[in-house]
Amino acid sequence: MKIMVQKYGGTSVAGLERMKKVLSRVSKGVEEGFKVVVVLSAMSGETNKLIGLAKEFSSEPDSEEMDALVATGENVSVALFSILAKDNGIKAKSLQGWQVPILTTDAYKKARIVSIDAQKMRAMLEDIDVLVVAGFQGVDCHGRVTTLGRGGSDTTGVALAAALKADVCEIYTDVDGVFTTDPRVCSAARKLDVVSYDEMLELASSGSKVLQIRSVEFAKKYNVPVRVRSTFTDDPGTLVTQEDAMMEDLVISGIAFDRDQCRITVAKVKDKPGVAAAIFGAIAKQRILVDMIIQNTSSDGYTDMTFTISRADLDQTMAILEGVCKEIGAEGVQHDLNVAKVSVVGVGMRNHSGVASTMFQALQEENINIKLIATSEIKITCLIDEKYIELAVRALHTAFGLDKKAVQAC
Amino acid sequence: MKIMVQKYGGTSVAGLERMKKVLSRVSKGVEEGFKVVVVLSAMSGETNKLIGLAKEFSSEPDSEEMDALVATGENVSVALFSILAKDNGIKAKSLQGWQVPILTTDAYKKARIVSIDAQKMRAMLEDIDVLVVAGFQGVDCHGRVTTLGRGGSDTTGVALAAALKADVCEIYTDVDGVFTTDPRVCSAARKLDVVSYDEMLELASSGSKVLQIRSVEFAKKYNVPVRVRSTFTDDPGTLVTQEDAMMEDLVISGIAFDRDQCRITVAKVKDKPGVAAAIFGAIAKQRILVDMIIQNTSSDGYTDMTFTISRADLDQTMAILEGVCKEIGAEGVQHDLNVAKVSVVGVGMRNHSGVASTMFQALQEENINIKLIATSEIKITCLIDEKYIELAVRALHTAFGLDKKAVQAC
Repeated sequence: MKIMVQKYGGTSVAGLERMKKVLSRVSKGVEEGFKVVVVLSAMSGETNKLIGLAKEFSSEPDSEEMDALVATGENVSVALFSILAKDNGIKAKSLQGWQVPILTTDAYKKARIVSIDAQKMRAMLEDIDVLVVAGFQGVDCHGRVTTLGRGGSDTTGVALAAALKADVCEIYTDVDGVFTTDPRVCSAARKLDVVSYDEMLELASSGSKVLQIRSVEFAKKYNVPVRVRSTFTDDPGTLVTQEDAMMEDLVISGIAFDRDQCRITVAKVKDKPGVAAAIFGAIAKQRILVDMIIQNTSSDGYTDMTFTISRADLDQTMAILEGVCKEIGAEGVQHDLNVAKVSVVGVGMRNHSGVASTMFQALQEENINIKLIATSEIKITCLIDEKYIELAVRALHTAFGLDKKAVQAC
Repeated sequence: MKIMVQKYGGTSVAGLERMKKVLSRVSKGVEEGFKVVVVLSAMSGETNKLIGLAKEFSSEPDSEEMDALVATGENVSVALFSILAKDNGIKAKSLQGWQVPILTTDAYKKARIVSIDAQKMRAMLEDIDVLVVAGFQGVDCHGRVTTLGRGGSDTTGVALAAALKADVCEIYTDVDGVFTTDPRVCSAARKLDVVSYDEMLELASSGSKVLQIRSVEFAKKYNVPVRVRSTFTDDPGTLVTQEDAMMEDLVISGIAFDRDQCRITVAKVKDKPGVAAAIFGAIAKQRILVDMIIQNTSSDGYTDMTFTISRADLDQTMAILEGVCKEIGAEGVQHDLNVAKVSVVGVGMRNHSGVASTMFQALQEENINIKLIATSEIKITCLIDEKYIELAVRALHTAFGLDKKAVQAC
């Protein structure tokens, strides 16, 4: 049995005409001899409408009931699409999360998939050509409806492909694939034919929104090659796959950036054990995500502790640090909202020296000052003044040979 | 454990303000020491909206998928109400049909309830004060979502009360209870305090829309006293219960009428075995419901066969009869659209003679000609010219002593 998983987002199922486009792609798969598992999101706008409705009923709607509420959006999509498919003579059937079942944890609003009954689905596929599965949702051990968090339909698609050992997993969206950087900022940006799981993870966590991070983690863990492509064009898209399967050998595969950064510096803290734990323990307790963390070398027994957070968390973080500062005897806390981060990402930097210096030089040539530096195995990130962010992206895109028609690395 | 079942229709849950009214009633039940099982319909208009959407996708939407689609309407209601209840500090939980579970047949769009897991619900009620159950829906043995047909939420309410052996079963609607006749036609109509199951069945099948027929059958079968009352007033409503529990001893408890009637006469058919079977067998095959059936005494070996159907079925019925007429050698078929039926209903007529003659005399005094007569144990129905229907209802209402302030039977 040849199985193909296709996931379509909210804009791809918004209304009859768009669903017809989806149906023609699904039909093509069936004609080619595949059993097709279609994962659908709610029609665009529907989930926000339901959340808005709930907010009228309570300023803090109960999470468990919230999941039961918003999951109805996907249920409408799968029933309507199945009606359309059957009307066109295709053997189809809709499946809500509990009907698969997709068993998840009971962490409502951000549940994680525990298991999927692939055997039952394969048995259904003996008689049925197209199973239409509601994305973003599952059921927990108490028999309650859960949701996987925003963008969770990507994860549903990849998890189903993994469980079913599908031959093909395609994530359809409204862009042509994964780009070297955001084309709205850098007109020379070009689509990548192939990208590795690790690069995709770094790109996703650095601002690229084309795939949800957890779906990439899932794909990597179960080694599911994922093709990201557009519902609205015939472009083959980008294949997200294992490193060794990659055809291209670019050192750097993309430039990511993120404006939602705020730099915090806790000044003149004693350089002794327990200080970092006191600061970041207090912040983590409030579930605030800290991004970059830098501690400079100590001089005269004191050091500065600098880190970045999302701008929305600034007020809460400052309130927490006020208390912590007294406790650890720090001099004070400064913050800077006019910053943004830019990253170069590529598995090739593992084997190539000089990536960091190329990056720093490119920024220096544009007179852009670097405020913080952080590195991982396949990524180098610089925090800079926000006003330079577009300039930095374009300069780095050119410096690393990513511009259109220039496929050679530096 | 004292259990109260309360069912609310679509107008009672349309929006936050109305749901708050529902919540205050539910809270009162909790304060009085009841565990409350609340059955909700979809917000008014939502089911029709979903059906309209499906009709865009297919002229004949698949029934199985249709049920999955429209059931989302009730799921939105129960999640929102639970959010509101929890926000007000009440221990509440929503339950969709499959979560109860309410097991039904797999006759999609008109499924019948097979069983309800009352033990599981009672166990939940140990911790939870208010269970909010989606009306109108269930799950079949294949794990598919089913619906019980229009008005099915009444049946859900009564069935839950029966399964849970509830102490109280209240059906909330937008009228004050069951009336002696439609107050829009007869201003002297008055609300009944008590009505028997059988009378309610006859009233429901003769045009009164206050309770769905199947819910009354269910109540009768399991002897569940049902109180029909308004969400919007404090009127105690009407108790639908066993005959022997009734306090009032009216001969006639109500005048029902139905304009949606069309009279068909198959003229001059041979009076021999098999003729009725040929006619009504052919009609039943097309799932057309026949209401009154009259066959006059035969003269010279021929008879006329007369019956009534819903006006919407006229064209299809005439097409069927064209073929049947040739087969059985009938002279021809006539039809009459300008008819309506009026019925007097009451268990008292079992022990009182003269009800039929009182009815015929009252109609005669208004010069209303009777076209057909049909009787059951507790109902007499006359087919008359449609233009006289309001006049007939008012005349009979007075003749049988049903007018306001006149509580004595004729």
